[in-house]
Amino acid sequence: MKNFDRYKKIRSLALKKTKEKIKISYANEEFVLMQAINAYNEISKSYNLFFERISEWFGLYFPDIELSSINQLNLFFEGFENKEKLEIDDFYKIYEDKSKATLIYQKYLNSSGRELNESEKKLIMMFLKYIKNSNETLKNFDEYLKKTSNKLMPNTTYLTDEKIAAELLNKAGSLEKLSIMPASTIQLLGAEKALFKHIKFGSKPPKYGILFKLPALTNAKRTIRGKIARLYAAKISIGLRGDVISKRFIAEELKNSIEKTMQKIKNKQ
Amino acid sequence: MKNFDRYKKIRSLALKKTKEKIKISYANEEFVLMQAINAYNEISKSYNLFFERISEWFGLYFPDIELSSINQLNLFFEGFENKEKLEIDDFYKIYEDKSKATLIYQKYLNSSGRELNESEKKLIMMFLKYIKNSNETLKNFDEYLKKTSNKLMPNTTYLTDEKIAAELLNKAGSLEKLSIMPASTIQLLGAEKALFKHIKFGSKPPKYGILFKLPALTNAKRTIRGKIARLYAAKISIGLRGDVISKRFIAEELKNSIEKTMQKIKNKQ
Repeated sequence: MKNFDRYKKIRSLALKKTKEKIKISYANEEFVLMQAINAYNEISKSYNLFFERISEWFGLYFPDIELSSINQLNLFFEGFENKEKLEIDDFYKIYEDKSKATLIYQKYLNSSGRELNESEKKLIMMFLKYIKNSNETLKNFDEYLKKTSNKLMPNTTYLTDEKIAAELLNKAGSLEKLSIMPASTIQLLGAEKALFKHIKFGSKPPKYGILFKLPALTNAKRTIRGKIARLYAAKISIGLRGDVISKRFIAEELKNSIEKTMQKIKNKQ
Repeated sequence: MKNFDRYKKIRSLALKKTKEKIKISYANEEFVLMQAINAYNEISKSYNLFFERISEWFGLYFPDIELSSINQLNLFFEGFENKEKLEIDDFYKIYEDKSKATLIYQKYLNSSGRELNESEKKLIMMFLKYIKNSNETLKNFDEYLKKTSNKLMPNTTYLTDEKIAAELLNKAGSLEKLSIMPASTIQLLGAEKALFKHIKFGSKPPKYGILFKLPALTNAKRTIRGKIARLYAAKISIGLRGDVISKRFIAEELKNSIEKTMQKIKNKQ
């Protein structure tokens, strides 16, 4: 019986210790940042889907007008709501090109589409409101991502942006893991599928993963993209050590050095 | 010059005619119903994704509590918002099983998870609000689908339900096309991929597409599912002619006949 009591005591102690460990391991905000970037990506994807859907739906009422922004969507839906027709001035406000505004206004007046009944009007207005809400939600996430990426990974965020930094973190799983990764791994984070395809089937090796979202890479010529990715990955890996280990802001120097080397790469072409 | 004027006149006449035709072809509400069922499916998918995301996120704060409904989510988030701790009575309201409620309440008190800071609290509360809004939006769509499916396809909706009816319509492209489809085509609507796989590679032929969502099919034994799908498809195709061509409500008789045959199928097993 005495033995049993002792085991019980040990067990509860062990449980307590483990719980404390879990608490410490979740204490860092990086886990929230990872959830936030994932949620952001999911909402963003859904938002695009919803926008496409409402544009197609809108085509029932105005088959010859194409929507390309939420402002245009808003304009026409105001026209649904307030029964008086829209004025040409309303179109000037949304379409920069005056002649285009006039054209669209003409199309609006002579619509060959369907007339809405009350219950579908209610539904589509509600759907529009939901889409706007999705857009608002994205903005809120954007704000949080900016703030938190800059707080937790100031160097990496300075060299890339808040979303790329958060995605790198998300792929790595924790700041600690990310900070000890070699530059070559950072360069290929997010390109795992292509990498294993290369190893298994001998297809071309990937040159970049998440880093492809960098404007410096997207806008560069195909032939030098690999070099630029390598350059950025090298500097990011140094920046990450500043973020996590030495807690120093060294991104400005790193950025300067990136710009110098970029010039060299471009001159060599 | 006279010739040119004549062509111009003919052209504007032809344009006018075409516009009228477009207007007539969009006049029927069935096109709105198709947009609505597509939007419903997209929002529903996103909603599930968001719910999974927030459940995982919630795990940072309460790693040992699993969420399974939006009511539970609500309960804990109220706890985040009003700083006083939740009471055991609050748990009794949400969890039917009293002993389970007590267990979860204990876990809630001794959480081993992370404490929220202000900015992440703001973000996650906003995300919860957005998820609730998604749920509300789904309910609004549900209402519209019920109303409109019953209006446009009373027989089909009676035999299946508002979503299955709308999806059949969506797959067919228009009520007219759907109403002249043979029963065998209706049976396989939504199983196109499997059907072409069967034709091209000789895999097993599919037995049902959208109709698989019928509870009568989902709950039946594997061996008789094909028979039930054929039975339903046959009666739906008759019902559709009532919906579109003769405009008569004949679904009750059809339903009776379905039930009789179902009994026979089950007895034969």
